[in-house]
Amino acid sequence: MHINGQSYHTIWLHPEDPARVRIIDQRPLPHQFVIATLDSSEAAARAIREMWVRGAPLIGATAAYGMYLAALEAQTETDPVAWMQARRALLFSTRPTAVNLRWALQEQDRQWQEIAPEEWPARLLARAQAIVEEDVQRCYDIGRHGLTLLEKLHATRPDQPLNILTHCNAGWMACLDWGTATSPIYQAHAKGIPVHVWVDETRPRNQGARITAWELAQEGVPHTVIVDNVGGHLMQQGMVDCCIVGTDRTTRQGDVANKIGTYLKALAAHDNDVPFYVALPSPSIDWGMRDGLAEMPIETRGEQEVTHIQGWDETADQLVKVRLTPEKSHAVNYGFDTTPARLVTALITEKGVCPASETGLAALFPSPATG
Amino acid sequence: MHINGQSYHTIWLHPEDPARVRIIDQRPLPHQFVIATLDSSEAAARAIREMWVRGAPLIGATAAYGMYLAALEAQTETDPVAWMQARRALLFSTRPTAVNLRWALQEQDRQWQEIAPEEWPARLLARAQAIVEEDVQRCYDIGRHGLTLLEKLHATRPDQPLNILTHCNAGWMACLDWGTATSPIYQAHAKGIPVHVWVDETRPRNQGARITAWELAQEGVPHTVIVDNVGGHLMQQGMVDCCIVGTDRTTRQGDVANKIGTYLKALAAHDNDVPFYVALPSPSIDWGMRDGLAEMPIETRGEQEVTHIQGWDETADQLVKVRLTPEKSHAVNYGFDTTPARLVTALITEKGVCPASETGLAALFPSPATG
Repeated sequence: MHINGQSYHTIWLHPEDPARVRIIDQRPLPHQFVIATLDSSEAAARAIREMWVRGAPLIGATAAYGMYLAALEAQTETDPVAWMQARRALLFSTRPTAVNLRWALQEQDRQWQEIAPEEWPARLLARAQAIVEEDVQRCYDIGRHGLTLLEKLHATRPDQPLNILTHCNAGWMACLDWGTATSPIYQAHAKGIPVHVWVDETRPRNQGARITAWELAQEGVPHTVIVDNVGGHLMQQGMVDCCIVGTDRTTRQGDVANKIGTYLKALAAHDNDVPFYVALPSPSIDWGMRDGLAEMPIETRGEQEVTHIQGWDETADQLVKVRLTPEKSHAVNYGFDTTPARLVTALITEKGVCPASETGLAALFPSPATG
Repeated sequence: MHINGQSYHTIWLHPEDPARVRIIDQRPLPHQFVIATLDSSEAAARAIREMWVRGAPLIGATAAYGMYLAALEAQTETDPVAWMQARRALLFSTRPTAVNLRWALQEQDRQWQEIAPEEWPARLLARAQAIVEEDVQRCYDIGRHGLTLLEKLHATRPDQPLNILTHCNAGWMACLDWGTATSPIYQAHAKGIPVHVWVDETRPRNQGARITAWELAQEGVPHTVIVDNVGGHLMQQGMVDCCIVGTDRTTRQGDVANKIGTYLKALAAHDNDVPFYVALPSPSIDWGMRDGLAEMPIETRGEQEVTHIQGWDETADQLVKVRLTPEKSHAVNYGFDTTPARLVTALITEKGVCPASETGLAALFPSPATG
């Protein structure tokens, strides 16, 4: 997608130096657009750990590129195998719960373990680039299938903008390109369907207000930022035509774990007969889990994300972190919640659209182990 | 209630100078506790307009004291009646939609219009103080009736803390003392029932994180601040025993307008069989309105409340306002939403607890015009 009119992925090989990798440093967004260079596997690990990059697919791709950088470094090591194992452990330790991180490292393991060290860099680079391309294609296909839903909705009210509510950032900045929830929106916009997006700010980390809004602005997609409290009122007043959100994990019966607050929007959508769609790449389906409410582990994060917030001080022209709460008050910070399948109108995958149910998913993915 | 161990109301006559009135300046809370002095009707108007004071009952009391200050000023005016009328118009213009503001000014009109100017100050002071005392009593009675509900809930799980979720600030800082939604909580805490309050931060103005949390900390009531997205997850996980919120306006059939986001919590409570109580003083019942969803006017406020936030810069030791959103992105800011009566378990009024329905309210208030 585009930033300042120029086309980007979220990670790419440095065009003038193939021993370095470039990323968009997402920490100062939307106030500053910074491209960072990863010149070592250590730098790749830091970028994941300190959230210069975020979003499961992008974390996976960054780890894959990190192992490519490790393979370059291994060429001058006396024990290149030990080096690769140590770098793998370092990268794996950055965000231990991310499913894509583990998967990408396993993919890279297969590239080097049976060939000579001097062949490693080319093989690991090729696989890293393929991981990127596969994700781009998957997100594009999610958009293609989601687009048919938006076209149908638009056909029922062709004279009005199509109002879509989204939560958090399931956009291209969490992926390599297109995004998941945003992919149908970008494709509808490109096709001339007049879309307008209600962007939940998504406290506490404000990925909606910071990143989704910025992405949409860069693509010229009309949008309005709202606090997370507003969506129910908008749906009561007929101001939302559908919701589309992403997901971190979908169970085999179609329960969906996503950023905290998603469940509240699904309830409001259900109460007001607004379609509630969840966009997901199939690797995020957890075929080993059935009942999301009973089985889903919900991460808690540091309370500072609630008690403090970072923003741009326009007077001092710099990023500052300010305290919001009384010093004596504590906070808790649950990262995700579970939306039961009964509240999900349909799942949008790279293979097509299906009901949020065991039979719905099984019809699209008859052999889930290889899906 | 208490601040730093000392007992306060939110507005009171200056103990050493009866020509002045004192208030708590709520703007820098919770980071700074500032007592301000109102030495003129103009100062009272500014305190309401610029939200040094907020909350319908407190706005009414401040206007009543403002007319007392106007009566003092009128003693040296050549046309005291014209002065009183001009000051009344000034005070009325500060927050034109506040029901209590209009009511308090009408109350004060009755005090002076048939007596000599030199008698005005004593009469208007007496009425202002009576308005304060009436509100204190009303909030105390709400707490007394709400306490019976909390005692029943606690009796079902006597070994566990009672977890109560609240939204926004329906606390004593919005009233004169006790608060509405907080009054049962304070009374339960005083009686030794182990309460714990989940405090919704309540974006965009964060009245929960700033004021409710601060109030509860001052009274020593255990509480935890959460972002507005969390409540649904807590209810799914059985971590909320009941919700209690306030209201700005209740229709005769029991629909409730309250701070934006209340509806989402009511949906989650309903979906998880958690009792959802609304605490209200009877003056906030709008007997002329029936269907809240169709008839309730919803105020929109400035988008800066969404795009920016104020907090305490611990490095610079000062309050600063920071930008949260991209410069190209707009925001909308709806102040309230409507929770339909079907989602409200019961209304808690100063006359008792009743179902959120026309018959429920009529049983407690048979002659609403005089209620």
